[in-house]
Amino acid sequence: MQLFRNFKSVTKTCYGRGSFGKLGEILEPQRGAHQRFFVFLVDHYFEGWDDFIARIPKQEGDELIFCSTEKEPSTEQIDGLRDDILARRGLPAGVIGIGGGNVMDVAKALSLMFTNEGSSVQYQGLNLIRKPGIYHCGVPTISGTGAEVSMTAVLTGPVKKLGLKCDWTVFDQIVLDPDLITTVPTDQWFYTGMDTYIHSVEAITGTKKNTFAEAYSEKALDLCREVYLKRDRSDPKSDELLMVASYMGGLSLTYSEVGVCHALSYGLGKVLEMHHCFANCVAFNQLEDVYGEYVQEFKHMVKERGVNLPANLAKDWDEKTLDAMAEVAYNLPHMWDHAFGPDWQKVLDRERIKGWYRRM
Amino acid sequence: MQLFRNFKSVTKTCYGRGSFGKLGEILEPQRGAHQRFFVFLVDHYFEGWDDFIARIPKQEGDELIFCSTEKEPSTEQIDGLRDDILARRGLPAGVIGIGGGNVMDVAKALSLMFTNEGSSVQYQGLNLIRKPGIYHCGVPTISGTGAEVSMTAVLTGPVKKLGLKCDWTVFDQIVLDPDLITTVPTDQWFYTGMDTYIHSVEAITGTKKNTFAEAYSEKALDLCREVYLKRDRSDPKSDELLMVASYMGGLSLTYSEVGVCHALSYGLGKVLEMHHCFANCVAFNQLEDVYGEYVQEFKHMVKERGVNLPANLAKDWDEKTLDAMAEVAYNLPHMWDHAFGPDWQKVLDRERIKGWYRRM
Repeated sequence: MQLFRNFKSVTKTCYGRGSFGKLGEILEPQRGAHQRFFVFLVDHYFEGWDDFIARIPKQEGDELIFCSTEKEPSTEQIDGLRDDILARRGLPAGVIGIGGGNVMDVAKALSLMFTNEGSSVQYQGLNLIRKPGIYHCGVPTISGTGAEVSMTAVLTGPVKKLGLKCDWTVFDQIVLDPDLITTVPTDQWFYTGMDTYIHSVEAITGTKKNTFAEAYSEKALDLCREVYLKRDRSDPKSDELLMVASYMGGLSLTYSEVGVCHALSYGLGKVLEMHHCFANCVAFNQLEDVYGEYVQEFKHMVKERGVNLPANLAKDWDEKTLDAMAEVAYNLPHMWDHAFGPDWQKVLDRERIKGWYRRM
Repeated sequence: MQLFRNFKSVTKTCYGRGSFGKLGEILEPQRGAHQRFFVFLVDHYFEGWDDFIARIPKQEGDELIFCSTEKEPSTEQIDGLRDDILARRGLPAGVIGIGGGNVMDVAKALSLMFTNEGSSVQYQGLNLIRKPGIYHCGVPTISGTGAEVSMTAVLTGPVKKLGLKCDWTVFDQIVLDPDLITTVPTDQWFYTGMDTYIHSVEAITGTKKNTFAEAYSEKALDLCREVYLKRDRSDPKSDELLMVASYMGGLSLTYSEVGVCHALSYGLGKVLEMHHCFANCVAFNQLEDVYGEYVQEFKHMVKERGVNLPANLAKDWDEKTLDAMAEVAYNLPHMWDHAFGPDWQKVLDRERIKGWYRRM
């Protein structure tokens, strides 16, 4: 069963070393049209990093808000940000997210929630959003999640960890400057880059892919190999390649789905508040029975890069925790359907899921 | 010198076998919003092909116009179509181009000329168009030109062969159905597919490329190899791959340029009215001194596919013809700059260009 989708692309894309310096120029027409302020959501990682902050094209009246990324984006966080800004300042001209996948998702969700009434909880799912959001622009400073091109803003809510997913979620503009990812700490550079590796593997190995998705997955995987197995981190080309890998890995999902690893990762995220990319790595590391040689290649990359990937985490998880995680993972039928086909319930139950968690 | 570009993507993309059957559904919201008629521009190749024509979701009041592709699209043709439709029917809700690259370019140009006054001649160039065009949708029935994703609608005018190039040229919607390209005659299937091979080679070998362009070029070239060297034409996967190759080859030019072959091909097109893709093949076949092993690979593909690529055409070209073609080619400085760098005038003159033409 191939997917029929009519996917919406990011409207405008500016890629290249130094393109962050063009952000002011790029935003100017949006400012002119609305004569209102911009909200710059900036990864808390940059707090106190004055020379970077000075490069943000903030003008008088604009809001600059540091965005904590300790936890995954939540519906509560989005609703709070929206209510606060509307009460203090009214409707902005646009939201600019500068940071990792976390900040990208906050920017996308916030843009939508400025124009859709009520709590973001009620819009978690596909095409539940009723109105287009305000202008939103993404400037990634870490690469790998593909959040810069995806039509989903993943949010953790009181019940579900599920995205606001619709055509209007997609960014109006992205600025991809490889210079911005040079300072990412090694472990995070690896975990986040592996998100693109892992979802490209999941995209290419399931039942719902088509040739379009395959082409993007294959190229994203090749680019990951180039970055993590063939080049020095200090080689500037490495950052350029990783940024394209993230972009193409994101597009590999336009005509496919994530699979077993992401389902398990969502359980880790929802129950243990484990960061998405780290959780993916923890899970993928134990999925050789599903993703075979890709997991071997992943382990090879972990070793080559001397990355610290903890094991034996499961010894601290009690039965209640395992049950809770398995429940979250089990309730993602589109991922299981993609991974194992429409009869997935014949090969998968909560016990099998708990078995994977116990290995971690 | 890398390029800074902020490129506009095709707004919505529907890829997949059978997606042509979704065209009516896809167009419906556009129809509803305007309560006006659609113009279906259909490649004259389908004239009399009743079962295909019956599949076009034409409703009462819509115009279906067969589009001759004997000559490359011209400013005269666009102005005439626009004036005729406006006089008879008024402003349409949208233009849907169903055909090869030629029809794609007519649909793009016509969409723009419905809202921009005067002759299309005055808009040949970059960003000369002043207003967005009307809704336009592209449905390719031959793959390779990349016209489905490009921001150019190439037109032959009284003086120049040059595109209407701006953000608004880009399609609002494309429908990529591999089923539609199965019946393309072998020679044309080869020549048109080679357009993507050739411009991917030109994109990757010049001075203006960046890593984004490289990734798309490399993948487009791999897909071409898969189609023309490894698979049977009758293998349905072959059509799926070629359609993605064309798409990615088109995107390889977002951060690069075409080069020597396209410059020479423009001369053949303008002076001899030779079809673009065929002209590319005629020129590329003689460019081993510039594109080395790529030309060898191209010759290998010609041989493997038993394609009829004529040689010794130049014996019929007099000095005046050669001068005229060299003049057209020489006056494409952005292509020469990309191919040979900013000092291209030191290595290129009209005589060198004529030398290439004499070999053809």
